[in-house]
Amino acid sequence: MSSPSETEWCVESLVALFQKYAGKDGNSSKLPKTEFLSFMNKELAAFTKNRKDPGVLDHMMKKLDFNSDGQLDFQEFLNLIGGLAIACHESFLKGPLYFKSQK
Amino acid sequence: MSSPSETEWCVESLVALFQKYAGKDGNSSKLPKTEFLSFMNKELAAFTKNRKDPGVLDHMMKKLDFNSDGQLDFQEFLNLIGGLAIACHESFLKGPLYFKSQK
Repeated sequence: MSSPSETEWCVESLVALFQKYAGKDGNSSKLPKTEFLSFMNKELAAFTKNRKDPGVLDHMMKKLDFNSDGQLDFQEFLNLIGGLAIACHESFLKGPLYFKSQK
Repeated sequence: MSSPSETEWCVESLVALFQKYAGKDGNSSKLPKTEFLSFMNKELAAFTKNRKDPGVLDHMMKKLDFNSDGQLDFQEFLNLIGGLAIACHESFLKGPLYFKSQK
């Protein structure tokens, strides 16, 4: 078997990341709020450590929890990853303009 | 600066992968059909090489091209990645049952 491509590695990694954090309470199909906070603080520390308002993560959880069951399922988790990727892609496309506006 | 977490690596990787394939024609914001086929054949070869019907990739492109402009934008590309990840996640959750049904 050949080694996985970068895309395959990425897909497997997203599944494994969700399983890792969601599985902490023995249920690997849902990410309740404590596990979401653990994920955010460990995996997206660059984002969370500069937030002075602790309500930001509460608000994010509520926005992502589309069916309002107090937990994130895998689809809802992917919406977070997709949102981050889109922000990253857009800042890449707008790169020079963005940096200009910061001067 | 600390090294990126697995999630950050994954997000950056998705953006870079799209740029890599979409940028081949000089426009890194859209993935036309030739670039989509190049992406599928190189990055998801395990999926494409066993397809005897060449229409499968045409059909996938049409399904993913939500606004029917003949190209995939980054959001449409992410829907492909998300779909793969969901299929992978579901087969993980259903794993033992799936293998049982194959006997």
